[in-house]
Amino acid sequence: MTQVRTVRATVEYDGAGFQGFQRQRSSRTVQGVLETAVRAATGDDETVAGAGRTDSGVHALGQVIAFRTQSRLDDGTLLRALNAHLPADVAIRDLATAAPGFDPRRDATVRVYEYRIEQRPVRPVLDRTRAWHVGKTLDLARMRSAAAVMVGSHDFDAFTAGAQVSTRREVFALEVWREASTILIRIAANAFLYRMVRRIVTTLVRAGRCEIDAADVTALLTPAARSQIRGTAPAHGLTLLRVEYPNVESRYNRQRMTQAVRS
Amino acid sequence: MTQVRTVRATVEYDGAGFQGFQRQRSSRTVQGVLETAVRAATGDDETVAGAGRTDSGVHALGQVIAFRTQSRLDDGTLLRALNAHLPADVAIRDLATAAPGFDPRRDATVRVYEYRIEQRPVRPVLDRTRAWHVGKTLDLARMRSAAAVMVGSHDFDAFTAGAQVSTRREVFALEVWREASTILIRIAANAFLYRMVRRIVTTLVRAGRCEIDAADVTALLTPAARSQIRGTAPAHGLTLLRVEYPNVESRYNRQRMTQAVRS
Repeated sequence: MTQVRTVRATVEYDGAGFQGFQRQRSSRTVQGVLETAVRAATGDDETVAGAGRTDSGVHALGQVIAFRTQSRLDDGTLLRALNAHLPADVAIRDLATAAPGFDPRRDATVRVYEYRIEQRPVRPVLDRTRAWHVGKTLDLARMRSAAAVMVGSHDFDAFTAGAQVSTRREVFALEVWREASTILIRIAANAFLYRMVRRIVTTLVRAGRCEIDAADVTALLTPAARSQIRGTAPAHGLTLLRVEYPNVESRYNRQRMTQAVRS
Repeated sequence: MTQVRTVRATVEYDGAGFQGFQRQRSSRTVQGVLETAVRAATGDDETVAGAGRTDSGVHALGQVIAFRTQSRLDDGTLLRALNAHLPADVAIRDLATAAPGFDPRRDATVRVYEYRIEQRPVRPVLDRTRAWHVGKTLDLARMRSAAAVMVGSHDFDAFTAGAQVSTRREVFALEVWREASTILIRIAANAFLYRMVRRIVTTLVRAGRCEIDAADVTALLTPAARSQIRGTAPAHGLTLLRVEYPNVESRYNRQRMTQAVRS
């Protein structure tokens, strides 16, 4: 009997060369390139599911994917085989057999993104595909005050472009700090609405320019907020850092223990 | 009467798209691109001199250049005009009128380079043009012991590929540290021989792999060293961070003061 298992992997990619994560008929996408590599390495024609559908230009250091396979290659060999079939701008960082039915999007409980801003008079060169260039000096204390308001469970309707059933999300952490000429913004939430991270960044930058203050942000977070965030920070400053699955690990371990007891 | 002045500028570039700094007839070089921009912005057909002739693939955050110009544009306007004529992979970071006769190579007293190593099992993606991928774990303590031996004034003949009149150079500092999966090596010296930084990196990596120890490095630094360093660390891990001119500043200020007293 052919054994089918679910494989879970962590993926790094440079968003510059992709029209986003999600497969499209005539564009180069991360999902498309990964499915081609899975086919080449295993012979399986399977869908590769991702934790988040990152937009065109958005990078990832820790996107999580899953796919089903009949391959008998052990995890280490499968990782090397996939990387041998992947182009230079995407790589599998680690890979393991997952609990049957593991769904990287539905099972995720925490997503962490980082946004990079280069704040200097002249355009950056070495970080030009990794950071948003902002010429004006940003007031970090004001950015932090605005950020503090967004932490917690709020209605982020004003921060999205799409139409969602529920627009309530819980932001666990939102940190802003500086390293030389780089301003780093790191945000963790249970989930994000379409364009939500980049519109939070726009809001923080407007706060840093003293165009809005924490009270304005509070007003935007009410369900009856009449205005929408204008402007979306550029995609190339954004990186999906990691996705967390605390419950899945324990569920898988429970299953394995149950199987061990039964066998 | 047309006034000719010497302009000094700090330049950032991504080495990936250049066949090194030095002008060549049929290759894209940093010097060639800069001279084209100077011509376009000022009309002057002048040589752009650089502090260091970085190799093909080597990056710079703080290369220093100088050129003569008859342009009456003030420094800020000239900076913006040059950047408007430069491609995305090179930019002028700052610019000022220099002492007449300022020579960025001859007048430099300190050069600082940084080398980045990504030490992890799988090849890096986002830093693939900025860091050397080393799969094996490196022993940082051993790298530091080897580095300590190289600090000071030594004969670096075993560390160069070219033929130089004198192969004695003074290394002011050589630091090795880790940030997550990145190992950073920073080296400051009065000057460097051809390929010297990259062969020092090769030596440190060999020490980190326990192939050689500090005593072997000491032997390599003697004038009678019979062996040469085998292997040169890849160019794309190397970045020219900055060049220092402590005496030039004071010389220029003295000149200006003398002129002010005279006028």
